[in-house]
Amino acid sequence: MNLNMDLLFEAVEKKGHVCVGLDTAIDYVPAAERSKIQDDAQAVLAFNKTLIDSTFDVAACYKVQIAYYEEMGINGLKAYSQTLKYIHSKGCLAIADIKRGDIADTAVRYAKAHFSSDFQADFVTLNPYMGMDSIEPWLKEAQKNGKGAFVLMRTSNPGMKDFEYQTLVNQDTDKPLRLYNIVGNKMSDLAQKNKGKYGYGMFGVVVGCTEKDEASVIRQTYNDLFFLIPGYGVQGGGAKEAALLLQNANGGVVNASRSIITAWKTENSEKNIDNLFAAEAARCATIKMRDEIKNAVQKEKTGEQ
Amino acid sequence: MNLNMDLLFEAVEKKGHVCVGLDTAIDYVPAAERSKIQDDAQAVLAFNKTLIDSTFDVAACYKVQIAYYEEMGINGLKAYSQTLKYIHSKGCLAIADIKRGDIADTAVRYAKAHFSSDFQADFVTLNPYMGMDSIEPWLKEAQKNGKGAFVLMRTSNPGMKDFEYQTLVNQDTDKPLRLYNIVGNKMSDLAQKNKGKYGYGMFGVVVGCTEKDEASVIRQTYNDLFFLIPGYGVQGGGAKEAALLLQNANGGVVNASRSIITAWKTENSEKNIDNLFAAEAARCATIKMRDEIKNAVQKEKTGEQ
Repeated sequence: MNLNMDLLFEAVEKKGHVCVGLDTAIDYVPAAERSKIQDDAQAVLAFNKTLIDSTFDVAACYKVQIAYYEEMGINGLKAYSQTLKYIHSKGCLAIADIKRGDIADTAVRYAKAHFSSDFQADFVTLNPYMGMDSIEPWLKEAQKNGKGAFVLMRTSNPGMKDFEYQTLVNQDTDKPLRLYNIVGNKMSDLAQKNKGKYGYGMFGVVVGCTEKDEASVIRQTYNDLFFLIPGYGVQGGGAKEAALLLQNANGGVVNASRSIITAWKTENSEKNIDNLFAAEAARCATIKMRDEIKNAVQKEKTGEQ
Repeated sequence: MNLNMDLLFEAVEKKGHVCVGLDTAIDYVPAAERSKIQDDAQAVLAFNKTLIDSTFDVAACYKVQIAYYEEMGINGLKAYSQTLKYIHSKGCLAIADIKRGDIADTAVRYAKAHFSSDFQADFVTLNPYMGMDSIEPWLKEAQKNGKGAFVLMRTSNPGMKDFEYQTLVNQDTDKPLRLYNIVGNKMSDLAQKNKGKYGYGMFGVVVGCTEKDEASVIRQTYNDLFFLIPGYGVQGGGAKEAALLLQNANGGVVNASRSIITAWKTENSEKNIDNLFAAEAARCATIKMRDEIKNAVQKEKTGEQ
């Protein structure tokens, strides 16, 4: 059985580090195309397909943020389901950004929903707040078919400091231990039992590229965990920060959503822009980001400043 | 504008503390009824409607766990949507147990999905891990129409000790401060700006009734937060523990799912059981639980052991 985390590693080797985020709101679709299709969800789906067509050979994977589809109700979730299927039809990997976190039987139900059925994805994102019994049932389900997950560890938003960054009373060492470290440590423990052929556990973690100072330490501490790295572009993180989290060159994927799928909005006039034009802009933005990260990783390796 | 948290308080005054959890798996539906309807989601919906018919005058509200519906894909989510609509048609309040936790624009999209549109509920459950910027966008949306939320604070599962229960470095006092306290304190701060007529903030918290020792302290500390209390019955919590979290008699609702909706399973033979019989068993279980809690609250008040 192939582990999806191994397949993702191989996709990064081949196509670079970019994870294209399909957080597709209706107003990200060019107006000319919106006017052609009555149903918002169908317009979003059509745009997604064109975006996938134009980026599948330069993106490591796709991340689909379910909130943007839930907002459109049942029709939106149909478009979500069809977007996942279209990603698979191109031979690519899909991360379902669902940030679920629930326990016992409920967790199993969620896992069945997102590892099979209408909403089948290759990876999910999970929220650890309730404890490891909100993660382990997913792992048990994942082991049946090699699926993967990324557990929220240290995210890229300012509010990250509210809880994730809180310092814990630590009897064992003098080093400050933060909540996100406890999460990372538990995930690292879990990874020991299910490492793939490139040394990463089936389940990785989410680490934002917005805190440069800690990036190298985090990468070294959790060298058995593959990272899903948000915060690039719009959220203020850059290639340098991302490279520190990648260090050994293939340790994660870097997500960007708006900076790619709305790259066409930098044009002066929206009037004549169609999906194909917007998709070409998305392709250029993906290639640019891929190369920025590749160069930054190279600089880190050679110690160049 | 009515605040839903006020309406919930009034529903408790009138109908007691029980929140009926519609975590309806297909195997919770009597076999005789399952054989009548081809589509699982439709069978679940039909069962839900009979359950609601038989409990709406003795339950404070309903909690619908979306995982059980997501498992059934698009059809399942249609049944979820129709269950919420049916609860509303009976003049009752619905808590969408979705445990979402995401930031910025994504949080707004989620809020629009669950405070309006196909999935409109009166309350949602939220996960605070990412920080207060994953809660505040929901509050902003909630203020438009009086909606409410319950934020995970100290849950009822054993894994609660992994993160929620971690002790944090506290510069201000010598008292141990746990992660769940930091969450509670932030929620209490937030409540100061949006208290309803009974003294509770628009957003409450989830506190399990499985830790008797801390229950009174938690109730006193967060007396401006209404509680959603899981853990009753199957998860090991009882009326005594719940009563401590209620103390002043109307400070929360106590959820039970399986012990109510599968109460019919205590019968020796499943053969002749239909939805109506199962719903009557659910009604009896609801009334029994309502009275157990009422008695326990009374005992707490009078100091009886």
